[in-house]
Parts: sequence; C-alpha cells; structure tokens
Amino acid sequence: MKLNKNAETVILIVGLGLLGGSYARALKKKGYTVWAIEKKQESVQYALDEGIIDRGTTRVENSFLKGASITVFALYPHVFLDWIREHGEKFPAGAILTDVTGVKSAVVHRVQEMLPAGVEYIAAHPMAGREVGGVENSDDAIFRGANYIVVPTDRNTHEGVECCKELGRELGFADVSVLTPEKHDEMIAFLSQLTHCIAVSLMCAGDDTGLVHYTGDSFRDLTRIAKIQEELWSELFLMNKEALLSQMERFREAFDALEKAVRTEDREGMKEMMRLSTARRSLFDQKGGQA
Amino acid sequence: MKLNKNAETVILIVGLGLLGGSYARALKKKGYTVWAIEKKQESVQYALDEGIIDRGTTRVENSFLKGASITVFALYPHVFLDWIREHGEKFPAGAILTDVTGVKSAVVHRVQEMLPAGVEYIAAHPMAGREVGGVENSDDAIFRGANYIVVPTDRNTHEGVECCKELGRELGFADVSVLTPEKHDEMIAFLSQLTHCIAVSLMCAGDDTGLVHYTGDSFRDLTRIAKIQEELWSELFLMNKEALLSQMERFREAFDALEKAVRTEDREGMKEMMRLSTARRSLFDQKGGQA
Repeated sequence: MKLNKNAETVILIVGLGLLGGSYARALKKKGYTVWAIEKKQESVQYALDEGIIDRGTTRVENSFLKGASITVFALYPHVFLDWIREHGEKFPAGAILTDVTGVKSAVVHRVQEMLPAGVEYIAAHPMAGREVGGVENSDDAIFRGANYIVVPTDRNTHEGVECCKELGRELGFADVSVLTPEKHDEMIAFLSQLTHCIAVSLMCAGDDTGLVHYTGDSFRDLTRIAKIQEELWSELFLMNKEALLSQMERFREAFDALEKAVRTEDREGMKEMMRLSTARRSLFDQKGGQA
Repeated sequence: MKLNKNAETVILIVGLGLLGGSYARALKKKGYTVWAIEKKQESVQYALDEGIIDRGTTRVENSFLKGASITVFALYPHVFLDWIREHGEKFPAGAILTDVTGVKSAVVHRVQEMLPAGVEYIAAHPMAGREVGGVENSDDAIFRGANYIVVPTDRNTHEGVECCKELGRELGFADVSVLTPEKHDEMIAFLSQLTHCIAVSLMCAGDDTGLVHYTGDSFRDLTRIAKIQEELWSELFLMNKEALLSQMERFREAFDALEKAVRTEDREGMKEMMRLSTARRSLFDQKGGQA
C-alpha cells in the first residue's frame, strides 16, 4: 500500500496523548484527514476544538476502523496489547497498522499473532517526546531533528515497510531507519533507558536541593531527563527488562573501574578512560553537527 | 582593599590558558590594565596581538609582582602550589592574590601557609569552562549565567573577601557566593566531578559508536561533558579524592537500588524513585528558569 498524500487518505490515531496529538498536528498540516479514538472525552474535544483532528470518538467504532487508510496506536504498551486482543478482529483485510511503542520485542510478535489474516502491523518507534504528557502538550516540532525507526519482522511486506517509512518522513523526522526488534531493544536500552536510570539515580543519590544554587550546566545536562513520567517509564523498563539489566551491568563495570582508579590513585588508568571517552564522544559531533 | 575600577588598577594573571585568557578578555573590556605571566611565549604573543593583555612575560619578573593590584593564578593545582613555593616570598606586603582552582581543601591552606605576612590570598572558583583549553579558545562569554564561588578561610579579612567578590561581579558572573573549603569540595564532588565520572563511564561502557546514528537528545545531554581534558581532570579528581569517592558511593547505592527494582520487577519501588527524582529536578527549574 502506498501513502497517498491527499485529504482522502484517512489516518486514524488511537490514543490522543502527547505523541498521538503530535502525530495529528503534523499530519493535518500535511493535508491528511485525521480521525481519533481516545477514551477521554475532554481530549477528543480539545483536539476537535484545536482543529488537529477531523473526527473523534471515545468508543471503538467500526466505521472508524474500516474507513482508515492507516491506524496509528499511540498507547501504553500493555494498553495496546489489551486493545488488539479485544478489537483486533474488527479490522478489515488490507488494513495497515503501526504504533509508537518504545519497546518492541515484547510487543511486536504478540500483536502480529493476534491480528486477522490480511491485516498488516508494521511496528515503528518515533524517538521523540517531552517530559510532560497529554494532548494539550502535543507539538509536532518534537519530531524535527529526531529519529524514526521502523521495526519490521519477517511477517511484514516490502510495501508495508515502505508505507511506514513514508509516514515517518511525512511526520517530519530527520532520519528514518530500520532495525530488527532485538537490535532496537538493545539500542533503546543503552541510549535511552540507561540514561534515564542514571539521571534518576543521580537525583535520588541524596538530598542536595540545597545545592541548586550552585548547579552548573553539566549537572543540569545530566539530569534534564530526571523529570520522568513514572507510569510509562516503569512499564517500558519492565517490558525491556533483560536488555536494560545487561546495559546497566555494562555501565556499572565501567563506573567501578573508574572508582577503583580514583581509589588506588591510578592516574594513568583514569587518563586512559578519559581519552577513550573523549575519542568516542567526538564521533557524535562529526555525525550530527551538534555538540 | 577595594577594587578600583580604572586603568590604573593592574590585574596580573599568572597562567594564560582558557580561564586566564577569559579573565583577561573580561577585565580588559571593563577598562582594567591587564598583565600576564605565562611560560609559553606563543601564548603571551597571542594575547598581546589580540589586545587582551597590556604587558606579558614568560619569566617571573619582580616588577610584575610588585606592580599588580591583584594577582590571579590560573594554573593547574600542583603547578600553582609549586609556583607559590618558589616565588611566593617575592610579593610585597599588601598584595592580594586569588585563583581559579577547581579544588580547594588541598590547595587553600597550603598556599596561605607559604605566603609571607601581609600577603592575602583569597581562594575563588569560577564555575565555568570549555571542553578545550588554551588562550586561543578563551572567551569571557563562558562567565555569563555561571557561578563564582569565593572560598575564604579564617585567615582572610573582610576587605579581602569583598574585593574578591567584586572581581567575580566584574568578570560578569551571574551569581557570586561564599563557601568554606570543605563545603566547596563536597559540592564540587557531587555537582561536577561525579557527573564527569558518570559521563566518562557511560562512554567507556562499550563500543557503541555504531549507535551514533540513533543517538537522541538524552544521550547527547548525558555525554556532552564526556570530552574531557584528562591531565587536568585526573589531577582534580585525585586532589579531591575522599569527597569524590564518597559521592561516587552515594550514586552507586541509588543506581543499585534502581537496578534491584528492575530485576525483582518491583514496579512500585521504581515509581517511587522516579517520583522523587522528578520532584527534586523540578526545583532546579524554579530556581534558574532553565530546564
């Protein structure tokens, strides 16, 4: 299926939170027709009032499922799984489904197994977000400069994957790429979940609110993500438990090595780690241009 | 002594690196006369050519020490100590000395003991820097929005401390405050040294340069300071060893608690840490206005 760029292409968003709302905003601007299913009436009303959706409902209506060209699930992982279990059979053959879920192995295969034949679900992870949730905080500017990752399995078709990549580009992501569910989860455990674990641990390490006064940029940088939505992130951590634990262990080994070098006054050992760190971090600047 | 704001007030900078050069730039703009002692001829020449100093020498000349209203030491800690040991006696009574050293307990008392009677050294720590060193990279914009901490002991006079605070304000720091050497070192171990340890450990945790492609803002934020000048920082770590080890231990305890919560699927324990983290981090926004 190709993504036809016109008002007759209906994109249905299930879940009008921060990401669902941001998708709606981006797609409306591109001229698509956007519908939404969202259990909270006030979120539907807000989105209608703001003009970021064309139709909205709080109930799972068959006319919505059957009229959509693509359906995007922007739900918590366990809510997404429950939703598919309850309503997945209602999609007509030829329907295209995708999502925004931040963990993949624990979700993708189970969803694909539950769907009827002829319904294709291509998993995707838009690597964008804010520290606050809700459609009221949605903003499609969060996609600019960000990565969009398509996470297909061997059940997916070439056309389905291409359509999902096209959606990422239409949303305004800087970079659209493809990973397996396992590679995705390993990457996300390291780059995103571990960093959130570190930021949270740093803030929990002691009550230093008296030090707020002296806080410089480095501490602010490290803890910017320490404001975290605990419902969502605790679920994401548990749904990617093994990959996350393995990355936490890797980090701890490096931290312990540095601690030992300080304790034993092994200055050369410290300097060696600092040189490695500097060299690796420099690669980032070359890639993205950002420091 | 008061800091007279005119061209007859000579500020002597010993060590024209990144910080020394940035001091020189800021003070020249304010109309002071700036002299420098710097062992590298090319750095002296660069500063003269750029017009950021009025006079410079590579040798420790008595006329410089005697003509200065204030002398600022911008040297590595051990170089500063060696310098005072060798030349400290040459300062005339009434001389005012200060510095930029990032650790205090291991430096301040030793310097004060070595100086002749009538020479006052008021320690200070400008909490500003860049990931690159050298006078060629100096830039007084790094002081804007940053903290300047005066670190007096009971050997200091009220006038000396006030003069040092005035210097911080003249340099353009957003905030000038006062701490004891012990409090300063504890604060710096937590807010600055621990964060650098974490960033370095994260970069050393494994060779994920293949992941550069997927790197989002959170990973970039956490590792921005992972490019680090290893000579300087390994010295700072060792000169603040006990305070740093104690902060590393606190962090490790929190990180271990979070790891245990993930491993045992203690979702409530994870959420509790995340709520605490979010609440504490929010205080920062209230203070500085910066996220």
